[in-house]
Amino acid sequence: MRTLDLALGERSYPIHVGAGLIDDASLVLAHLKQRKVAVVTNTTVAPLYLERVRGSLEAAGVRVITIILPDGEEHKNWGTLNIIFDALLEHRCERATTLIALGGGVIGDMTGFAAATYQRGAPFIQMPTTLLAQVDSSVGGKTAINHPRGKNMIGAFYQPRAVLADMQTLNTLPRRELQAGLAEVIKHGVIRDAEYFAWLEANIDALLAGDAEALAHAVVRSCEIKAAVVALDEREEGPRAQLNFGHTFGHAIETGFGYGTWLHGEAVALGMVMAADLSARLGMITRADAARLQGLIARAGLPVEVKGMPAGRFLELMSHDKKAQEGKLRFVLLEAIGSATVRADVSPALLAETLRLAA
Amino acid sequence: MRTLDLALGERSYPIHVGAGLIDDASLVLAHLKQRKVAVVTNTTVAPLYLERVRGSLEAAGVRVITIILPDGEEHKNWGTLNIIFDALLEHRCERATTLIALGGGVIGDMTGFAAATYQRGAPFIQMPTTLLAQVDSSVGGKTAINHPRGKNMIGAFYQPRAVLADMQTLNTLPRRELQAGLAEVIKHGVIRDAEYFAWLEANIDALLAGDAEALAHAVVRSCEIKAAVVALDEREEGPRAQLNFGHTFGHAIETGFGYGTWLHGEAVALGMVMAADLSARLGMITRADAARLQGLIARAGLPVEVKGMPAGRFLELMSHDKKAQEGKLRFVLLEAIGSATVRADVSPALLAETLRLAA
Repeated sequence: MRTLDLALGERSYPIHVGAGLIDDASLVLAHLKQRKVAVVTNTTVAPLYLERVRGSLEAAGVRVITIILPDGEEHKNWGTLNIIFDALLEHRCERATTLIALGGGVIGDMTGFAAATYQRGAPFIQMPTTLLAQVDSSVGGKTAINHPRGKNMIGAFYQPRAVLADMQTLNTLPRRELQAGLAEVIKHGVIRDAEYFAWLEANIDALLAGDAEALAHAVVRSCEIKAAVVALDEREEGPRAQLNFGHTFGHAIETGFGYGTWLHGEAVALGMVMAADLSARLGMITRADAARLQGLIARAGLPVEVKGMPAGRFLELMSHDKKAQEGKLRFVLLEAIGSATVRADVSPALLAETLRLAA
Repeated sequence: MRTLDLALGERSYPIHVGAGLIDDASLVLAHLKQRKVAVVTNTTVAPLYLERVRGSLEAAGVRVITIILPDGEEHKNWGTLNIIFDALLEHRCERATTLIALGGGVIGDMTGFAAATYQRGAPFIQMPTTLLAQVDSSVGGKTAINHPRGKNMIGAFYQPRAVLADMQTLNTLPRRELQAGLAEVIKHGVIRDAEYFAWLEANIDALLAGDAEALAHAVVRSCEIKAAVVALDEREEGPRAQLNFGHTFGHAIETGFGYGTWLHGEAVALGMVMAADLSARLGMITRADAARLQGLIARAGLPVEVKGMPAGRFLELMSHDKKAQEGKLRFVLLEAIGSATVRADVSPALLAETLRLAA
């Protein structure tokens, strides 16, 4: 097991990465305020891992409530959140009861937001079971639900007490989900670490084949990068915005085609292709660098083009981006492979050219 | 104008108390991150004060969105909250847009929770227009909506940037609402300040008559008491629980009889009578002290008895109290007029005797 630390003063927490962690109750017990937890998961993950988590905790004398939600981004809304609240109240869960998110990014985001707001704040632990959740969404305390007008519009910055990334859970991950997780892995390399990006180019086939050693390296390195950025800027007032590379375009794609049609990672992959294209049009990177990123994304089996989203619709959806200021869109763009920056001065004409790719 | 300070490090903020503050845009401008605000109010307050607030801000060059909600505790729920989110998104409000809560406790709680969760946190300002909101709910950062199973079950600790208590707004306050506000005023005296309690006994008729000087003194002194307690313990991990005196019983009454049937202050008044009765049964205070509190509550025109809530229903509703730990109810009880403490060791038999008062 490798343990990283997300350094946030009194809100600091460990990120454990290793094999078989979901069977190790001691990693959970260390953080409980009372011997009662509510495990939130979905109909896909429950048959695979819920009994193991429940069994190890109950053997350690912990009372376990289980809450099973429908699976999919299209359920990341208030109605599903309320299933969590109803169950917590029905089972008399208190402010000191710990919630455990057992699943992918949607489960982590919703469980985290439920914890942030249940009785004005209960503790929670992330047990991510997808690559995307392990390398990205379980770390950093962003929690949210979607609104019909925009992704992650209602939420909170609320940190977990611990993250337990069990590499064994990736063994059951569908290939499409593995690929979607690689989108965020590629993002971490291209925005912060050229050497990691080159390593990904050399190891993309091993990662796609589910090579345990390669995946463990990617999870650890991506968590290191994410933890370092979040420690600098917890509430996204500055450098944390880098982590949104590909997300301004990506969120518009997810919302525009309907939640659940595209996986989040797929939309981010295409969003990165568009952001790199825009970076090249602005002369910030060469066409060769943009092609290098697009090439790695394509090798990961991720989408590099879309059709059917007119520029006007794209602009409308992007206008709700959380990074917007004074009505001006802000884009995370590349200065080089391994370095990103935020720009608010993109001309409508250049943006229109990039958007034409998707029209 | 008097200005108090709620000292919470980087989350500190001023509480301004005075006449005509809603016409003074400079008090708002000092806290804006962009020249755009969303004023949230209700159908009762809007005809009285919305145009004045809008006019002064627009004259200062601020773009003002207005959001008018239905009035009443029964609307303090997700459906009404979503009216706020829909309007914010429709008008392209950003993370830097400031929300202004213009109204009583329900408007303040819901606007604060909307601000806490819109795009993971937007700034907000409290403009309380009821006595209850001015002396209690607008100060301290508790925000929430109700759940059918319990009051304020879904919420956040999220501090405003400023509180502007305009004493002139009390001129239009219905007598029943004025009385409900006095319940929290009496609470502040009885839990923390015997001298203030005695002053209230001497001035209750002036307060009920709407005497401006007496009301201003009560608002300032109550805000001082509340600000001091919140500064000690922002997230209610210790002494802040004192402020819940009367609320464990009171919330059960509000939920049990249906949101909107009792005003919050009325339920708290009766809850204080019950908590004082329980304190006397435990030998913590004399019967004379309990009677003294009950006498002041009665003189304020507030309820001191109820019938129709069987003990079993009371216990069921109280079991969801946010102060409960390990399944044990915790009660805020009196040690004297002017001093409260939290007890978790109340015997079921003694509690049953207090609950019999309401059966």
